[in-house]
Amino acid sequence: MSKHQYGEIMMGPGKEFDIIRRMIHRWGGLVRNIGDDAAILDVPRGERLIVSTDISVEGVHFKREWFTPQEIGFRSAVAALSDLAAMGATPLGLLVGLTVPDRWLTELDGVAGGIGAAVMSNDTVIVGGDTTRGEVLTLAITVLGHTRAPLRRTAAVPGDRVYVTGKLGGPLTALRALEKGETPSKEARERLATPMSRVGEGRWLLEHGARAAIDISDGLVADACHLAAASDARIDLDLDQLPLISGASALDAAQSGEEYELLVVSTRKLDEKAFYERWYTELTEIGMVAAVGNPSVVAYLHGERVDIGGGFDHFAPNRLPAEG
Amino acid sequence: MSKHQYGEIMMGPGKEFDIIRRMIHRWGGLVRNIGDDAAILDVPRGERLIVSTDISVEGVHFKREWFTPQEIGFRSAVAALSDLAAMGATPLGLLVGLTVPDRWLTELDGVAGGIGAAVMSNDTVIVGGDTTRGEVLTLAITVLGHTRAPLRRTAAVPGDRVYVTGKLGGPLTALRALEKGETPSKEARERLATPMSRVGEGRWLLEHGARAAIDISDGLVADACHLAAASDARIDLDLDQLPLISGASALDAAQSGEEYELLVVSTRKLDEKAFYERWYTELTEIGMVAAVGNPSVVAYLHGERVDIGGGFDHFAPNRLPAEG
Repeated sequence: MSKHQYGEIMMGPGKEFDIIRRMIHRWGGLVRNIGDDAAILDVPRGERLIVSTDISVEGVHFKREWFTPQEIGFRSAVAALSDLAAMGATPLGLLVGLTVPDRWLTELDGVAGGIGAAVMSNDTVIVGGDTTRGEVLTLAITVLGHTRAPLRRTAAVPGDRVYVTGKLGGPLTALRALEKGETPSKEARERLATPMSRVGEGRWLLEHGARAAIDISDGLVADACHLAAASDARIDLDLDQLPLISGASALDAAQSGEEYELLVVSTRKLDEKAFYERWYTELTEIGMVAAVGNPSVVAYLHGERVDIGGGFDHFAPNRLPAEG
Repeated sequence: MSKHQYGEIMMGPGKEFDIIRRMIHRWGGLVRNIGDDAAILDVPRGERLIVSTDISVEGVHFKREWFTPQEIGFRSAVAALSDLAAMGATPLGLLVGLTVPDRWLTELDGVAGGIGAAVMSNDTVIVGGDTTRGEVLTLAITVLGHTRAPLRRTAAVPGDRVYVTGKLGGPLTALRALEKGETPSKEARERLATPMSRVGEGRWLLEHGARAAIDISDGLVADACHLAAASDARIDLDLDQLPLISGASALDAAQSGEEYELLVVSTRKLDEKAFYERWYTELTEIGMVAAVGNPSVVAYLHGERVDIGGGFDHFAPNRLPAEG
């Protein structure tokens, strides 16, 4: 262990370096391998490297008045870690890229603390990053992980069962209330402000026979579309089976984005009870991969086919998906 | 090779995905492994993983009127790749995180083209990323590479020789002209707008005995300070030896940031001639590691000690370092 690890970083003077020092102090033992131009990591022998970048922008992905600085940091890190979960990967570490407006400098400890809480709860570390000033608070978080045989979006085949983790509908229900200036329920708000990345769950699912997965960031149906497109398959979903948070309808749950739950496809039947006993989280069978070709998602509610449009699109004029 | 590689990415509808598709089309064969929640890569057996993130923000790191969209993309990618160069690493790929304001949508092909040019000239590929809208064009680029025994900032010991690649002073000279509304010289402007990342050069230096390195992003003296601090050593620099672009003074060259040249420390004497013949770039001995303890940089000009402050700080009120 060299002396510049664990936060004893040696740097020259300057305001930018003071900010980095402050964050490193805040993160303490969560910081590793910082101090060179780049971080040096080792991927276990025989394992593949899994990497993803996720960007959160103030005013696009979150409004300052809706969340505490801690929550903003936490959910940004969770959004990135969730991509490792969807691959069944074990985290190696995070790179934290921050663009910080002057008005945010006093809140930076909170943002850093939130990132640190997500890092700690996923049993990983911060291995590097970049900090700069700028007009809009932007968190660009890169996650690195490893696994021997990752879950792929392309792997779904007809006859496979489709599962989802957790309970859906929280983020959309909470956003709808916040947009109206109302107070969301505690359960809904928690699912929006402090979602969980299902990293351990993703690994468990991979080990127990899951073939394909995607995390629910755009909405269940929208993400099922991505999976159907990648696997060139039709996926049938029974919305009556969707696990709901209280106050959410099945249509809400089908469209709610930023859930960070996992949509999982498995040839083998998965043991929902064993999953719950290990993770205190639901695993629910909600459909099947029905046919090859004409990639699409067909959703049923009360036995009737329902048409649900695409999901969340950061370039669309409205932040909130249309009500179903 | 699965079908979602090489740009044949399968995704659902939406404006955000249209933008990603457009960039993937622009990049063509430079895109690999895109289509899952995260990219899957392999680090060669026995090699270590090297990763770094670099952020470029419009109005902080560049002004739109100074550069073409291609140049903005190119220099952002070079800034990130330069961190691999400083470690002596071979690139595995880039993750490109883009925040795009509406007014930039028509210029996005240019930005993507510039990133692609930097990627191609460093013989690497684009393996993933994230795209979102936002008020300020922001490029968050993560680079991944590998090497067996990376160059470290901590490795300098007394008696080591200090070298620098290329010719210095271009970016500062060009910025000074641009800030005054004047036209910089072609040579200076090129060094600012289309700098080179010394990836091949860094690997060569590592293979030929270099022990420590840092890329010059904050300025020669400022980055020498980082290296001195990390190695707990005093570094003496002879500014009379600095290789200059025409029109730059030695003091300019000592302070010019965003050079992306390499400051290298080697116990063994390096062969400047062989380096030039291989890379058509200068390698110049400019100082030595003088003592252990009291980490500092002492700079001499015409035999006199000169005091040069710190370098570039994105949080400082002025973008341009003070004139020497």
